[in-house]
Amino acid sequence: MIVDCHGHYTTAPPQLGEYREAQKAALATDPNHVGELGTLSMSDDEIRESLEGAQLRLQRERGIDVAVFSPRASWMGHHIGNEHTSRFWSQHCNDLIRRVCDLYPDNFIPACQLPQSPGAPIDSSVRELRRCVDEMGFVGCNLNPDPSGGFWDGPPLSDRYWDPLFETMCELDVPAMVHVSATCNENFHTTGSHYLGADTTAFMQALTSDLFARFPDLRFVIPHGGGAVPYHWGRFKGMAEDQGWVSVGELLDNIWFDTCVYHQPGIDLLVDVIPVGNILFASEMVGAVRGIDPDTGAAYDDTKRYIDAASLTESDRAQIFEHNVRRVYPRLDALLTAKETA
Amino acid sequence: MIVDCHGHYTTAPPQLGEYREAQKAALATDPNHVGELGTLSMSDDEIRESLEGAQLRLQRERGIDVAVFSPRASWMGHHIGNEHTSRFWSQHCNDLIRRVCDLYPDNFIPACQLPQSPGAPIDSSVRELRRCVDEMGFVGCNLNPDPSGGFWDGPPLSDRYWDPLFETMCELDVPAMVHVSATCNENFHTTGSHYLGADTTAFMQALTSDLFARFPDLRFVIPHGGGAVPYHWGRFKGMAEDQGWVSVGELLDNIWFDTCVYHQPGIDLLVDVIPVGNILFASEMVGAVRGIDPDTGAAYDDTKRYIDAASLTESDRAQIFEHNVRRVYPRLDALLTAKETA
Repeated sequence: MIVDCHGHYTTAPPQLGEYREAQKAALATDPNHVGELGTLSMSDDEIRESLEGAQLRLQRERGIDVAVFSPRASWMGHHIGNEHTSRFWSQHCNDLIRRVCDLYPDNFIPACQLPQSPGAPIDSSVRELRRCVDEMGFVGCNLNPDPSGGFWDGPPLSDRYWDPLFETMCELDVPAMVHVSATCNENFHTTGSHYLGADTTAFMQALTSDLFARFPDLRFVIPHGGGAVPYHWGRFKGMAEDQGWVSVGELLDNIWFDTCVYHQPGIDLLVDVIPVGNILFASEMVGAVRGIDPDTGAAYDDTKRYIDAASLTESDRAQIFEHNVRRVYPRLDALLTAKETA
Repeated sequence: MIVDCHGHYTTAPPQLGEYREAQKAALATDPNHVGELGTLSMSDDEIRESLEGAQLRLQRERGIDVAVFSPRASWMGHHIGNEHTSRFWSQHCNDLIRRVCDLYPDNFIPACQLPQSPGAPIDSSVRELRRCVDEMGFVGCNLNPDPSGGFWDGPPLSDRYWDPLFETMCELDVPAMVHVSATCNENFHTTGSHYLGADTTAFMQALTSDLFARFPDLRFVIPHGGGAVPYHWGRFKGMAEDQGWVSVGELLDNIWFDTCVYHQPGIDLLVDVIPVGNILFASEMVGAVRGIDPDTGAAYDDTKRYIDAASLTESDRAQIFEHNVRRVYPRLDALLTAKETA
């Protein structure tokens, strides 16, 4: 079985974007606009159409069985509006993911976005996580370490600000993929420098703090192959030894890297440097890079090809493709086990 | 010949730090404090002592002939105080580098820091660059793409704000190493996430802009092995193709990566992915990682060992160790040529 732990609903029907534009229009008049949940109308057929030619076709073509599916990361936009904006927006985005997974229970397993908002308490995110996991069967969440959208003026992940969320994640036994959203800072490019910089930053915040000592059961998935981390593994290992921090090896009790690295040499480095038990298969399709590599004739984000070609045993490959993700996402494992034994 | 293009004076005598502390004390009373250049008193023997057991010993032990030497990057601290603070501080730091190079002309070749200051015009940096290059024989400079120290609230490198500096760099025929300083943002770790994130950010700013179309002779060295860039080369290549930006190949007419990557697999990826003509040998010793790797018994930052062990021809190695840096730093080449023919 091949499980892609990193898929976003990037192709949602236009009604979703229209809802968001209406929120922005109301905020343009009044930044404190509260509004209401309102409705998001789209038919099952529209949802099917948005997926059949995209994620579902690519799953079939590439031999991917199922994907952990969450709302479009770049659209989380936690910096937009206020806590009410984020709350209503997240509820709709998560409800839509639930609909997708109801329509295609064999292809998608739901993970949620959180209604984070700069300066607002984390409680709203705790409530939405509970709603999604307890009431809607979600198996994980996306956690934005910089809800400011690129100005990094909130508390780091090691700050007690986040504790209620981390306590709830541990209680519910769900991991977080640590994933920023679009940047509104002109210094950064969303899917280029901002995503990769945030990945490295989240790792470093964990390495330099007592976060996992305080939450030994907390689990983070660092997307995009861990940002710059595996490429600079010696740097982080050496710094941790110099400074007497937790060792990078110990950190791997709580951190996993996905395989969203879009060329063979990058994947080769990842599987060479990071223990195979800490690597989760992922492609992020349909995502940041949608083209065909003229040098290989294959899609850049067809990461299964790179894993297939990497120097790994069949047992290693099975860990990366399936077993690790089932260990990190126990609720996903329970769903798959229930199906297998049905 | 082996040229290390990335060395900082991290071991300067305590008088340098005392000067800086006096600046900070005056700023604590008055953030607009202007002050004066003042004096920095240290003997030649104190300078010799600060280097003999450190950079000079390591150069000898590792077989490095000469290093491009600049003030300590983490101490540039452009976010501290105001433009006057930065101007006086930079002058002293650069004058001190000149003294080091006068004491050890065979070991060190000078590069300068710039007196950048958030919100202040770039003119002061232009003047200091001219002073260092024209009057003191410097061969390059360190350019901070985020003088805010981690809040990234200034203009990106593609903004016209920087044009006077880039015009002067082209006129003087000196490259910049794009290198941030210490972060004052608790979300980042200076030599971990901030340095590597900034490297990736600078590359991305160039990739998404017309910077090198406007300045075809401008040359940037991206330190720390290019941050996350080579590890994610497929991502950047694919994004550029998707978006119709300048290609990553074309970008390499103006961008080089150093070899400050502190483990063998990272260097192997770098030399596999990046054309050999775009790689400049560097170690950044004595720098961010000073320990011995227990797995190899060698210093993490002894990057020459990794280049020696990498799959490269002798001609490739000579390019990385010497010829590329002489091409990117013509004034360094002129100095070395003058010595060789003396």
